[in-house]
Amino acid sequence: MNKQAKTKYGIHSLLENRWSPRSFRDISIEKEKLQRIFEAASWSPSCFNEQPWRFIVGEKGNETYNKILEGLVEFNKKWAVNAPVLIVSLAKKYFSKNYKENFHFLYDTGQAVAHLTFQASYEGLYVHQMAGFNFETIKNNFDIPDEFYIVTVIAVGYIGSPDLLDDKLKESENSERVRKELSEIFFKEKFGLSWE
Amino acid sequence: MNKQAKTKYGIHSLLENRWSPRSFRDISIEKEKLQRIFEAASWSPSCFNEQPWRFIVGEKGNETYNKILEGLVEFNKKWAVNAPVLIVSLAKKYFSKNYKENFHFLYDTGQAVAHLTFQASYEGLYVHQMAGFNFETIKNNFDIPDEFYIVTVIAVGYIGSPDLLDDKLKESENSERVRKELSEIFFKEKFGLSWE
Repeated sequence: MNKQAKTKYGIHSLLENRWSPRSFRDISIEKEKLQRIFEAASWSPSCFNEQPWRFIVGEKGNETYNKILEGLVEFNKKWAVNAPVLIVSLAKKYFSKNYKENFHFLYDTGQAVAHLTFQASYEGLYVHQMAGFNFETIKNNFDIPDEFYIVTVIAVGYIGSPDLLDDKLKESENSERVRKELSEIFFKEKFGLSWE
Repeated sequence: MNKQAKTKYGIHSLLENRWSPRSFRDISIEKEKLQRIFEAASWSPSCFNEQPWRFIVGEKGNETYNKILEGLVEFNKKWAVNAPVLIVSLAKKYFSKNYKENFHFLYDTGQAVAHLTFQASYEGLYVHQMAGFNFETIKNNFDIPDEFYIVTVIAVGYIGSPDLLDDKLKESENSERVRKELSEIFFKEKFGLSWE
Protein backbone atom coordinates (compact mmCIF):
# COMPACT_ATOMS: atom_id res chain seq x y z
CA MET A 1 0.00 0.00 0.00
CA ASN A 2 1.44 3.35 -1.01
CA LYS A 3 -0.85 6.26 -0.24
CA GLN A 4 1.86 8.91 -0.39
CA ALA A 5 0.67 11.95 -2.35
CA LYS A 6 2.11 12.03 -5.88
CA THR A 7 3.33 15.62 -5.78
CA LYS A 8 4.73 17.74 -8.57
CA TYR A 9 6.75 20.19 -6.47
CA GLY A 10 7.15 18.35 -3.16
CA ILE A 11 5.46 19.15 0.14
CA HIS A 12 6.22 18.55 3.82
CA SER A 13 6.32 14.82 4.59
CA LEU A 14 3.56 15.12 7.23
CA LEU A 15 1.22 16.46 4.55
CA GLU A 16 2.47 14.07 1.88
CA ASN A 17 1.78 11.01 4.00
CA ARG A 18 -1.50 12.12 5.56
CA TRP A 19 -4.62 10.33 4.33
CA SER A 20 -7.94 9.14 5.75
CA PRO A 21 -7.94 5.40 6.44
CA ARG A 22 -10.89 3.30 7.58
CA SER A 23 -8.84 0.55 9.18
CA PHE A 24 -7.51 1.18 12.68
CA ARG A 25 -5.48 -1.02 15.00
CA ASP A 26 -7.16 -2.16 18.18
CA ILE A 27 -4.93 -0.18 20.54
CA SER A 28 -5.71 2.95 22.53
CA ILE A 29 -4.01 6.34 22.14
CA GLU A 30 -1.65 7.53 24.88
CA LYS A 31 -3.13 10.39 26.91
CA GLU A 32 -0.06 12.61 26.26
CA LYS A 33 -0.59 12.26 22.53
CA LEU A 34 -4.24 13.23 22.82
CA GLN A 35 -3.27 16.24 24.93
CA ARG A 36 -0.81 17.39 22.28
CA ILE A 37 -3.15 16.92 19.32
CA PHE A 38 -5.87 18.82 21.20
CA GLU A 39 -3.50 21.60 22.15
CA ALA A 40 -2.40 21.87 18.51
CA ALA A 41 -6.03 22.51 17.52
CA SER A 42 -6.34 25.22 20.16
CA TRP A 43 -3.49 27.27 18.65
CA SER A 44 -5.18 27.60 15.27
CA PRO A 45 -5.99 31.14 14.02
CA SER A 46 -9.57 32.45 13.93
CA CYS A 47 -11.54 35.56 13.05
CA PHE A 48 -11.14 38.04 15.97
CA ASN A 49 -9.55 35.13 17.88
CA GLU A 50 -13.07 33.87 18.60
CA GLN A 51 -11.93 30.21 18.62
CA PRO A 52 -15.44 29.01 17.67
CA TRP A 53 -14.43 25.32 17.85
CA ARG A 54 -15.49 22.86 20.56
CA PHE A 55 -14.93 19.10 20.69
CA ILE A 56 -16.51 16.14 22.46
CA VAL A 57 -14.04 13.31 22.91
CA GLY A 58 -14.98 9.65 23.24
CA GLU A 59 -12.46 6.95 24.06
CA LYS A 60 -13.26 3.35 23.24
CA GLY A 61 -15.02 1.67 26.13
CA ASN A 62 -16.51 4.80 27.64
CA GLU A 63 -20.04 6.14 27.45
CA THR A 64 -19.11 9.19 25.39
CA TYR A 65 -17.63 6.96 22.71
CA ASN A 66 -20.77 4.83 22.56
CA LYS A 67 -22.98 7.91 22.30
CA ILE A 68 -20.93 9.27 19.40
CA LEU A 69 -20.91 5.89 17.66
CA GLU A 70 -24.69 5.68 18.05
CA GLY A 71 -25.00 8.92 16.06
CA LEU A 72 -23.08 7.69 13.01
CA VAL A 73 -24.82 6.46 9.86
CA GLU A 74 -24.60 2.69 9.37
CA PHE A 75 -21.94 2.90 6.67
CA ASN A 76 -19.57 4.79 9.00
CA LYS A 77 -20.51 2.82 12.13
CA LYS A 78 -19.25 -0.34 10.46
CA TRP A 79 -15.60 0.79 10.25
CA ALA A 80 -15.42 3.66 12.78
CA VAL A 81 -16.16 1.21 15.60
CA ASN A 82 -12.53 0.12 15.29
CA ALA A 83 -11.07 3.59 15.97
CA PRO A 84 -9.89 4.05 19.57
CA VAL A 85 -11.03 7.69 19.65
CA LEU A 86 -14.10 9.38 18.15
CA ILE A 87 -14.48 13.15 18.37
CA VAL A 88 -17.45 15.38 17.57
CA SER A 89 -16.46 18.81 16.24
CA LEU A 90 -18.77 21.76 17.00
CA ALA A 91 -18.67 25.38 15.88
CA LYS A 92 -20.24 28.42 17.56
CA LYS A 93 -22.40 30.43 15.14
CA TYR A 94 -22.09 33.81 16.88
CA PHE A 95 -19.30 35.99 18.22
CA SER A 96 -19.18 35.78 22.00
CA LYS A 97 -18.46 39.48 22.41
CA ASN A 98 -21.54 40.86 20.60
CA TYR A 99 -23.64 37.91 19.44
CA LYS A 100 -23.30 38.92 15.81
CA GLU A 101 -23.25 36.15 13.22
CA ASN A 102 -19.74 34.77 12.65
CA PHE A 103 -19.46 33.96 8.94
CA HIS A 104 -16.15 32.23 9.55
CA PHE A 105 -17.19 29.74 12.22
CA LEU A 106 -17.00 26.72 9.92
CA TYR A 107 -13.90 27.87 8.04
CA ASP A 108 -12.08 28.47 11.32
CA THR A 109 -13.18 25.14 12.77
CA GLY A 110 -11.86 23.43 9.64
CA GLN A 111 -8.49 25.03 10.30
CA ALA A 112 -8.47 23.84 13.91
CA VAL A 113 -9.18 20.28 12.78
CA ALA A 114 -6.37 20.55 10.23
CA HIS A 115 -4.04 21.62 13.07
CA LEU A 116 -5.20 18.63 15.12
CA THR A 117 -4.51 16.43 12.09
CA PHE A 118 -0.94 17.75 11.55
CA GLN A 119 -0.08 17.03 15.15
CA ALA A 120 -1.74 13.61 14.92
CA SER A 121 0.38 12.82 11.84
CA TYR A 122 3.46 13.91 13.77
CA GLU A 123 2.47 11.52 16.58
CA GLY A 124 2.11 8.62 14.14
CA LEU A 125 -1.69 8.74 14.22
CA TYR A 126 -4.25 8.90 11.43
CA VAL A 127 -7.47 10.88 11.20
CA HIS A 128 -10.66 10.23 9.23
CA GLN A 129 -13.35 12.92 9.22
CA MET A 130 -16.98 12.07 8.62
CA ALA A 131 -20.01 14.07 7.53
CA GLY A 132 -22.32 11.05 7.78
CA PHE A 133 -24.03 11.23 11.16
CA ASN A 134 -27.46 11.94 12.61
CA PHE A 135 -27.52 15.53 13.78
CA GLU A 136 -30.41 15.07 16.24
CA THR A 137 -28.94 11.99 17.89
CA ILE A 138 -25.62 13.74 18.56
CA LYS A 139 -27.37 16.92 19.71
CA ASN A 140 -29.59 15.05 22.16
CA ASN A 141 -26.91 12.67 23.40
CA PHE A 142 -24.70 15.55 24.53
CA ASP A 143 -27.14 18.42 25.28
CA ILE A 144 -25.53 20.60 22.63
CA PRO A 145 -26.78 24.21 22.77
CA ASP A 146 -28.57 25.64 19.71
CA GLU A 147 -25.83 28.20 19.13
CA PHE A 148 -23.44 25.39 18.19
CA TYR A 149 -23.46 23.69 14.82
CA ILE A 150 -22.42 20.03 14.77
CA VAL A 151 -19.80 19.88 12.04
CA THR A 152 -18.09 16.50 11.76
CA VAL A 153 -17.23 13.31 13.59
CA ILE A 154 -13.52 12.54 13.58
CA ALA A 155 -11.99 9.09 14.01
CA VAL A 156 -8.39 9.00 15.29
CA GLY A 157 -6.08 6.04 15.81
CA TYR A 158 -3.13 3.96 14.69
CA ILE A 159 -3.55 2.64 11.20
CA GLY A 160 -4.58 -0.98 10.68
CA SER A 161 -4.29 -3.41 7.80
CA PRO A 162 -6.74 -3.02 4.91
CA ASP A 163 -7.39 -6.74 5.35
CA LEU A 164 -9.46 -5.93 8.42
CA LEU A 165 -12.09 -4.34 6.15
CA ASP A 166 -14.68 -5.87 3.84
CA ASP A 167 -13.86 -6.10 0.13
CA LYS A 168 -15.47 -2.84 -0.92
CA LEU A 169 -13.83 -0.73 1.78
CA LYS A 170 -10.55 -2.57 1.24
CA GLU A 171 -10.56 -1.48 -2.40
CA SER A 172 -11.01 2.16 -1.38
CA GLU A 173 -8.29 1.75 1.25
CA ASN A 174 -5.82 0.58 -1.39
CA SER A 175 -6.75 3.06 -4.11
CA GLU A 176 -4.46 5.87 -5.18
CA ARG A 177 -5.08 9.37 -3.80
CA VAL A 178 -6.11 11.84 -6.49
CA ARG A 179 -6.39 15.62 -6.61
CA LYS A 180 -7.15 18.37 -9.12
CA GLU A 181 -4.19 19.92 -10.94
CA LEU A 182 -2.93 23.23 -9.52
CA SER A 183 -3.94 24.85 -12.82
CA GLU A 184 -7.57 24.04 -11.96
CA ILE A 185 -7.51 25.72 -8.55
CA PHE A 186 -4.91 28.52 -8.53
CA PHE A 187 -5.74 31.47 -10.78
CA LYS A 188 -4.43 34.88 -11.76
CA GLU A 189 -5.94 37.84 -13.64
CA LYS A 190 -9.45 36.37 -13.50
CA PHE A 191 -11.35 33.36 -12.25
CA GLY A 192 -10.38 30.26 -14.23
CA LEU A 193 -7.05 31.44 -15.70
CA SER A 194 -4.22 29.25 -14.43
CA TRP A 195 -1.62 30.86 -12.17
CA GLU A 196 0.81 28.11 -12.98
CA MET B 1 9.45 39.86 20.25
CA ASN B 2 8.46 36.36 21.32
CA LYS B 3 5.25 35.17 19.74
CA GLN B 4 5.86 31.48 20.39
CA ALA B 5 2.73 29.80 21.71
CA LYS B 6 2.89 29.19 25.47
CA THR B 7 1.86 25.57 25.41
CA LYS B 8 1.05 23.24 28.28
CA TYR B 9 1.82 19.92 26.59
CA GLY B 10 4.02 20.93 23.67
CA ILE B 11 3.12 20.94 19.99
CA HIS B 12 5.01 20.72 16.68
CA SER B 13 7.37 23.68 16.32
CA LEU B 14 5.79 24.77 13.01
CA LEU B 15 2.47 25.18 14.82
CA GLU B 16 4.05 26.67 17.92
CA ASN B 17 5.77 29.42 15.96
CA ARG B 18 2.97 30.22 13.52
CA TRP B 19 1.20 33.53 14.05
CA SER B 20 -0.36 36.27 11.90
CA PRO B 21 1.91 39.30 11.54
CA ARG B 22 1.05 42.58 9.83
CA SER B 23 4.63 43.57 9.06
CA PHE B 24 6.24 42.03 6.00
CA ARG B 25 9.67 42.53 4.48
CA ASP B 26 9.81 44.14 1.06
CA ILE B 27 11.07 41.06 -0.76
CA SER B 28 9.25 38.74 -3.15
CA ILE B 29 8.59 35.03 -2.59
CA GLU B 30 10.49 32.51 -4.70
CA LYS B 31 8.27 30.81 -7.27
CA GLU B 32 9.28 27.32 -6.05
CA LYS B 33 8.08 28.20 -2.56
CA LEU B 34 4.73 29.40 -3.88
CA GLN B 35 4.38 26.21 -5.91
CA ARG B 36 4.96 24.11 -2.81
CA ILE B 37 2.61 26.04 -0.53
CA PHE B 38 -0.10 25.84 -3.19
CA GLU B 39 0.48 22.16 -3.72
CA ALA B 40 0.23 21.62 0.04
CA ALA B 41 -3.24 23.19 -0.02
CA SER B 42 -4.31 20.92 -2.85
CA TRP B 43 -3.62 17.75 -0.83
CA SER B 44 -6.02 18.70 1.95
CA PRO B 45 -8.95 16.34 2.64
CA SER B 46 -12.52 17.25 1.69
CA CYS B 47 -16.04 15.86 1.76
CA PHE B 48 -16.37 13.35 -1.14
CA ASN B 49 -12.99 14.71 -2.30
CA GLU B 50 -14.86 17.67 -3.84
CA GLN B 51 -11.92 20.05 -3.24
CA PRO B 52 -14.24 23.09 -3.15
CA TRP B 53 -11.34 25.53 -2.77
CA ARG B 54 -10.09 27.92 -5.44
CA PHE B 55 -7.53 30.71 -5.12
CA ILE B 56 -6.64 33.90 -6.99
CA VAL B 57 -2.99 34.81 -6.55
CA GLY B 58 -1.60 38.32 -6.81
CA GLU B 59 2.12 39.09 -6.73
CA LYS B 60 3.26 42.57 -5.84
CA GLY B 61 3.57 44.71 -8.95
CA ASN B 62 1.07 42.83 -11.06
CA GLU B 63 -2.53 43.73 -11.91
CA THR B 64 -4.04 40.86 -9.92
CA TYR B 65 -2.32 42.09 -6.77
CA ASN B 66 -3.65 45.61 -7.28
CA LYS B 67 -7.16 44.34 -7.87
CA ILE B 68 -7.07 42.31 -4.65
CA LEU B 69 -5.63 45.23 -2.70
CA GLU B 70 -8.38 47.48 -4.04
CA GLY B 71 -10.96 45.15 -2.48
CA LEU B 72 -9.55 45.33 1.05
CA VAL B 73 -11.06 47.58 3.71
CA GLU B 74 -8.92 50.62 4.56
CA PHE B 75 -7.65 49.16 7.82
CA ASN B 76 -6.24 46.08 6.06
CA LYS B 77 -5.04 47.98 2.97
CA LYS B 78 -2.71 50.01 5.16
CA TRP B 79 -0.55 47.06 6.23
CA ALA B 80 -1.35 44.39 3.61
CA VAL B 81 0.19 46.59 0.90
CA ASN B 82 3.57 45.48 2.24
CA ALA B 83 2.95 41.77 1.70
CA PRO B 84 4.55 40.42 -1.49
CA VAL B 85 1.65 38.03 -2.15
CA LEU B 86 -2.10 38.47 -1.66
CA ILE B 87 -4.45 35.56 -2.27
CA VAL B 88 -8.24 35.44 -2.47
CA SER B 89 -9.73 32.17 -1.22
CA LEU B 90 -12.98 30.98 -2.78
CA ALA B 91 -15.23 28.02 -1.98
CA LYS B 92 -17.72 26.25 -4.24
CA LYS B 93 -21.17 25.99 -2.68
CA TYR B 94 -22.37 22.89 -4.54
CA PHE B 95 -21.05 19.42 -5.28
CA SER B 96 -19.84 19.23 -8.86
CA LYS B 97 -21.25 15.73 -9.38
CA ASN B 98 -24.91 16.46 -8.56
CA TYR B 99 -25.21 20.17 -7.76
CA LYS B 100 -26.46 19.46 -4.24
CA GLU B 101 -25.53 21.93 -1.52
CA ASN B 102 -22.15 21.15 0.06
CA PHE B 103 -22.47 21.95 3.76
CA HIS B 104 -18.74 21.48 4.19
CA PHE B 105 -17.46 23.91 1.55
CA LEU B 106 -16.22 26.48 4.09
CA TYR B 107 -14.91 23.94 6.60
CA ASP B 108 -12.96 22.15 3.87
CA THR B 109 -11.59 25.40 2.46
CA GLY B 110 -10.40 26.34 5.96
CA GLN B 111 -8.48 23.09 6.08
CA ALA B 112 -6.86 23.75 2.71
CA VAL B 113 -5.71 27.18 3.90
CA ALA B 114 -4.33 25.58 7.08
CA HIS B 115 -2.35 23.18 4.87
CA LEU B 116 -1.05 26.13 2.84
CA THR B 117 -0.09 27.85 6.09
CA PHE B 118 1.70 24.81 7.47
CA GLN B 119 3.83 24.54 4.32
CA ALA B 120 4.41 28.32 4.36
CA SER B 121 5.73 28.07 7.93
CA TYR B 122 8.05 25.28 6.80
CA GLU B 123 9.34 27.57 4.02
CA GLY B 124 10.05 30.38 6.52
CA LEU B 125 6.99 32.40 5.43
CA TYR B 126 4.15 33.93 7.43
CA VAL B 127 0.46 34.12 6.65
CA HIS B 128 -2.21 36.60 7.75
CA GLN B 129 -5.82 35.89 6.84
CA MET B 130 -8.37 38.67 6.52
CA ALA B 131 -12.15 38.80 6.60
CA GLY B 132 -12.21 42.57 6.02
CA PHE B 133 -12.77 43.08 2.29
CA ASN B 134 -15.47 44.30 -0.05
CA PHE B 135 -17.24 41.27 -1.49
CA GLU B 136 -18.61 43.06 -4.57
CA THR B 137 -15.28 44.65 -5.52
CA ILE B 138 -13.49 41.30 -5.43
CA LYS B 139 -16.34 39.56 -7.26
CA ASN B 140 -16.39 42.14 -10.05
CA ASN B 141 -12.62 42.51 -10.33
CA PHE B 142 -12.22 38.80 -11.08
CA ASP B 143 -15.54 37.74 -12.65
CA ILE B 144 -16.18 35.26 -9.87
CA PRO B 145 -19.15 32.96 -10.63
CA ASP B 146 -22.16 33.04 -8.28
CA GLU B 147 -21.59 29.44 -7.23
CA PHE B 148 -18.38 30.49 -5.46
CA TYR B 149 -18.32 32.18 -2.08
CA ILE B 150 -15.48 34.62 -1.46
CA VAL B 151 -14.06 33.50 1.86
CA THR B 152 -10.89 35.37 2.85
CA VAL B 153 -7.95 37.37 1.57
CA ILE B 154 -4.61 35.92 2.62
CA ALA B 155 -1.35 37.87 2.90
CA VAL B 156 1.86 35.83 2.61
CA GLY B 157 5.47 36.96 2.96
CA TYR B 158 8.66 37.11 4.98
CA ILE B 159 8.15 38.71 8.34
CA GLY B 160 9.22 42.34 8.86
CA SER B 161 10.07 44.43 11.89
CA PRO B 162 7.15 45.71 14.01
CA ASP B 163 8.84 49.12 13.71
CA LEU B 164 7.57 49.33 10.13
CA LEU B 165 4.03 49.67 11.52
CA ASP B 166 2.24 52.59 13.16
CA ASP B 167 2.02 52.65 16.97
CA LYS B 168 -1.33 50.93 17.30
CA LEU B 169 -0.51 48.05 14.96
CA LYS B 170 2.95 47.79 16.50
CA GLU B 171 1.38 47.18 19.89
CA SER B 172 -0.74 44.35 18.50
CA GLU B 173 2.33 42.94 16.72
CA ASN B 174 4.22 42.74 20.01
CA SER B 175 1.39 41.43 22.18
CA GLU B 176 1.32 37.91 23.57
CA ARG B 177 -0.74 35.26 21.82
CA VAL B 178 -3.63 34.00 23.92
CA ARG B 179 -5.99 31.05 23.66
CA LYS B 180 -8.79 29.41 25.64
CA GLU B 181 -7.81 26.62 28.05
CA LEU B 182 -8.29 23.09 26.73
CA SER B 183 -10.86 22.59 29.51
CA GLU B 184 -13.04 25.19 27.79
CA ILE B 185 -13.04 23.50 24.39
CA PHE B 186 -12.55 19.73 24.84
CA PHE B 187 -15.44 17.97 26.54
CA LYS B 188 -16.57 14.48 27.55
CA GLU B 189 -19.91 13.03 28.70
CA LYS B 190 -21.82 16.19 27.78
CA PHE B 191 -21.30 19.65 26.32
CA GLY B 192 -19.30 21.81 28.74
CA LEU B 193 -17.75 19.10 30.93
CA SER B 194 -13.96 19.24 30.63
CA TRP B 195 -12.23 16.26 29.00
CA GLU B 196 -8.99 17.23 30.64
